[in-house]
Amino acid sequence: MGNFKGHALPGTFFFILGIWWTTKCILKYAFKKHKQTSYLDSKVLFHRVEILEGIIIAGMALTGMLGEQFIPGGPHLTLYDYKEGQWVQLLGWHHFTMYFFFGLLGVTNILCSTIRSLPASFTKLMLANALFVEGFVFYNHTHGREMLDIFVHKLLVLVIFLTGLIAFLELFILTNITVELLRISFFLLQGSWFWQIGFVLYPPSGGPAWDLVDHDNVMFLTICFCWHYAIAIIIIGAIYAFVTCTMSSQISCTGKALPSSYHIRENGEPAEFLPLRSFTSSHVKNCNSF
Amino acid sequence: MGNFKGHALPGTFFFILGIWWTTKCILKYAFKKHKQTSYLDSKVLFHRVEILEGIIIAGMALTGMLGEQFIPGGPHLTLYDYKEGQWVQLLGWHHFTMYFFFGLLGVTNILCSTIRSLPASFTKLMLANALFVEGFVFYNHTHGREMLDIFVHKLLVLVIFLTGLIAFLELFILTNITVELLRISFFLLQGSWFWQIGFVLYPPSGGPAWDLVDHDNVMFLTICFCWHYAIAIIIIGAIYAFVTCTMSSQISCTGKALPSSYHIRENGEPAEFLPLRSFTSSHVKNCNSF
Amino acid sequence: MGNFKGHALPGTFFFILGIWWTTKCILKYAFKKHKQTSYLDSKVLFHRVEILEGIIIAGMALTGMLGEQFIPGGPHLTLYDYKEGQWVQLLGWHHFTMYFFFGLLGVTNILCSTIRSLPASFTKLMLANALFVEGFVFYNHTHGREMLDIFVHKLLVLVIFLTGLIAFLELFILTNITVELLRISFFLLQGSWFWQIGFVLYPPSGGPAWDLVDHDNVMFLTICFCWHYAIAIIIIGAIYAFVTCTMSSQISCTGKALPSSYHIRENGEPAEFLPLRSFTSSHVKNCNSF
Amino acid sequence: MGNFKGHALPGTFFFILGIWWTTKCILKYAFKKHKQTSYLDSKVLFHRVEILEGIIIAGMALTGMLGEQFIPGGPHLTLYDYKEGQWVQLLGWHHFTMYFFFGLLGVTNILCSTIRSLPASFTKLMLANALFVEGFVFYNHTHGREMLDIFVHKLLVLVIFLTGLIAFLELFILTNITVELLRISFFLLQGSWFWQIGFVLYPPSGGPAWDLVDHDNVMFLTICFCWHYAIAIIIIGAIYAFVTCTMSSQISCTGKALPSSYHIRENGEPAEFLPLRSFTSSHVKNCNSF
Repeated sequence: MGNFKGHALPGTFFFILGIWWTTKCILKYAFKKHKQTSYLDSKVLFHRVEILEGIIIAGMALTGMLGEQFIPGGPHLTLYDYKEGQWVQLLGWHHFTMYFFFGLLGVTNILCSTIRSLPASFTKLMLANALFVEGFVFYNHTHGREMLDIFVHKLLVLVIFLTGLIAFLELFILTNITVELLRISFFLLQGSWFWQIGFVLYPPSGGPAWDLVDHDNVMFLTICFCWHYAIAIIIIGAIYAFVTCTMSSQISCTGKALPSSYHIRENGEPAEFLPLRSFTSSHVKNCNSF
Repeated sequence: MGNFKGHALPGTFFFILGIWWTTKCILKYAFKKHKQTSYLDSKVLFHRVEILEGIIIAGMALTGMLGEQFIPGGPHLTLYDYKEGQWVQLLGWHHFTMYFFFGLLGVTNILCSTIRSLPASFTKLMLANALFVEGFVFYNHTHGREMLDIFVHKLLVLVIFLTGLIAFLELFILTNITVELLRISFFLLQGSWFWQIGFVLYPPSGGPAWDLVDHDNVMFLTICFCWHYAIAIIIIGAIYAFVTCTMSSQISCTGKALPSSYHIRENGEPAEFLPLRSFTSSHVKNCNSF
Repeated sequence: MGNFKGHALPGTFFFILGIWWTTKCILKYAFKKHKQTSYLDSKVLFHRVEILEGIIIAGMALTGMLGEQFIPGGPHLTLYDYKEGQWVQLLGWHHFTMYFFFGLLGVTNILCSTIRSLPASFTKLMLANALFVEGFVFYNHTHGREMLDIFVHKLLVLVIFLTGLIAFLELFILTNITVELLRISFFLLQGSWFWQIGFVLYPPSGGPAWDLVDHDNVMFLTICFCWHYAIAIIIIGAIYAFVTCTMSSQISCTGKALPSSYHIRENGEPAEFLPLRSFTSSHVKNCNSF
Repeated sequence: MGNFKGHALPGTFFFILGIWWTTKCILKYAFKKHKQTSYLDSKVLFHRVEILEGIIIAGMALTGMLGEQFIPGGPHLTLYDYKEGQWVQLLGWHHFTMYFFFGLLGVTNILCSTIRSLPASFTKLMLANALFVEGFVFYNHTHGREMLDIFVHKLLVLVIFLTGLIAFLELFILTNITVELLRISFFLLQGSWFWQIGFVLYPPSGGPAWDLVDHDNVMFLTICFCWHYAIAIIIIGAIYAFVTCTMSSQISCTGKALPSSYHIRENGEPAEFLPLRSFTSSHVKNCNSF
């Protein structure tokens, strides 16, 4: 993983996952708000999509695990070299461990979507676990490196920890769209920050790497991190606008939805707190009754 | 920003914002309590005021951003000087980034007040974001400075972080006046602490600066920080007393309100937790129906 | 305050306050549970007691503030000695500041008990504030001292911070007897730990002080801290047993209460979460109607 | 305790406790879900089991306390050696203190199960206390040791602190099976990590100990910690599958239960949050009425 591609790949994965979750989350919110007739169908769709999501996450994690092990120069499932008396490729095993926990997340996602008796919050729990493990491993990952290298990884740990914290808090309190979008915005940030790390440590242009001991670079990357986050927010805002406009125009055509957008607001603010959750479970119920 | 004015200006801005929010928060609480006939009108007023608030915040942020860029000696939108091979005015870009996130807060405030389908909690989310970004940037802002300089900025980071934390917690739990006033008291503290920093690092009298390596100054600024907070609390208390008295005397004139002040209490304590929130949304509803 | 008495006095104050709050908290819980006929009278009693409590806290704080200023060798309200060009008695001013915030707590307590329109949670907020300020000041209090001195103050900061944290969390969530007793147990710990600090740093026997750089002393004080906490828990348990037994025997005499002790349990666990709070507010209501 | 057995024994204890709690927690959830006729009997059973649990925990703690004191070379209840002028066996007293708090947990468990008027959340409070004390003592336990020794104990403190944090949060919010299983998974992790510490510091094979200053060992133990956690999760998953399958097959035989597994889901997600708690208290009620 010690090259540009090794950072670009997980970055791309997290970024796409973030984009997808944004769309799903806003779609659910919009469907709920408009209470349109095609709502029932959308539930079945969402349910199938969630199984697919689990399969994709598990597949990506498996790919990552195998890749870390069997790339040329990888550990090939050897942990300790008894001849040399030393550990084999520990950094590779670090990445392997992180992928493994995301694999557990994928498996839990599939199980919770297919087995009715499992609480849906298990998925959220495994998400928090996968993120905390990722943060914990990265925290112990950069021993003996240069200042800038440690700094960019520290920021990575920060965003991973924050994402995990929000997923953890969602275990205790009924979720709402604002918190969900906040968590997703951190996913987007993590994705794009992986790219940034790649650019800083292994410039793809082949030019000289950044000066790893210049403190000005730390100062710049501090604000660069914030700009990445601003971009994540703007992307989510754009998706929100796009999804809402598309749905509004579609519903206007069928000529029934605009009044209902008034209704949701009349229930008062707390209404936004509940629907998403009750939606999640009721959609499983409906699926079962088919 | 490396002078007295550069600290006095944001300080004044935060302080005025804090005073304004205190008044608004207490007024809302008092209106709700008295359930007076002019309540409906006050809702429309509050709604318009919120749009105005968003415009003012966005305007201030824009002013700050432009000011940081185009003051004499500013970066003039140049980020990297390829000739010299170094970053241009990174501290200026730091301030620019903070202002930018407060600009996002202003824009979100306007959007949430005008577009009905947006959850009102987006504003709170962006407030937490703006504060966390501000705290994060200030945390990485003082590399290589003197002890006292670092200490006063650390205290600034502390109060910013606490404000952000409370705004963040308000995302999860229905807000109440106590928590809201706590958050606002930290805003007042931040505002007056900006002034204190200006006085410590760039004495406006032109006299010699404070001894930046004397630990006694750290000891004094510790309690000075607490005194600033005590003043913030006393100011809020004074506004509370003033607003409540003014409203009581006004309502006594119209001869109907005193009994209702008994009623609110009979609902028991939890009553205080809910009204503010349901008020927020229902006032939007009423505005729309006009 | 740099002597045994200076630590024994606040210690005694916090300890007595803790004992008193334990009794009050358990009495309220027991009264609520037994729903006895004298309940109405007890509410008026509790209300008066709360005003008295506020007056005592404010009085103690005022005594502390005056004491810190006007003891022989105290700062006598002078903050800066312009002749010498240095701060006057900053440690005394530190203690003064802490007392001041406890004074604010006392005043808020009185105001919230007498003015009906003030939310009762203001008292809790000021309690959290007073504790956080105390912790913050103590954290910056021990610059340049010996290891053991710093360690015992660090533990003091720890327990103060935990107490403040719980008081802060109680702002967000309806209180219950378990959390309240937890907070009070930390008050008892703080009180007895002040005594321990006095014994360690200024042995009242006049014998030689403890070896301030011996790490074994740190190891011992670690468990000593836990033993203090165990004693606090046992004291609370003893008061609980004593109060409950006394009330049961009294009620058995009047011949009606035992069955009701069955009832409370049949409401299920969550019942314990609500009554205390609704009690607080409804008791104000009843007081008012007299 | 400075040998392999001294780490294996508490490890085994925590591990068995974790396995037992997993089974109990899942059984309760499954009983609740199936609402079968034997439910009433199971409540009485659970109640008796909880008393037994308290007795076992208290007994284990007492054994540990006595063992730490009276093993050959132990402190034999002497705290300070006045002849030598030094503390006696402080590490032994550290362990003694931890056991003592687990003893308090056991006693509280017994009291809360037998005395009706005690809130059931006292047990949870004492659990959080016991864990925080354990973490606090371990945190101050490793002064002057080698890097790897400190690192493995730091990870132990981490998992203990996390367990305590979750037990603490459960005081504030109604418990649900996901959070409970999360807490238990940390118990399993703590148990197996005690074994790992034993293997690292005192290899039972009698071979040479690990190199305590080699940073590669730190890197390996980082992921080893995660693998222990993965195993804990897999064990819980296996128990879940086993218990659920066993109950389903049993209930299929009696020919009535499958439909009810549909019902629980139709209540929507939040249903999972409440039943466990109301179950706990209502089962006590039922026991009493016998």
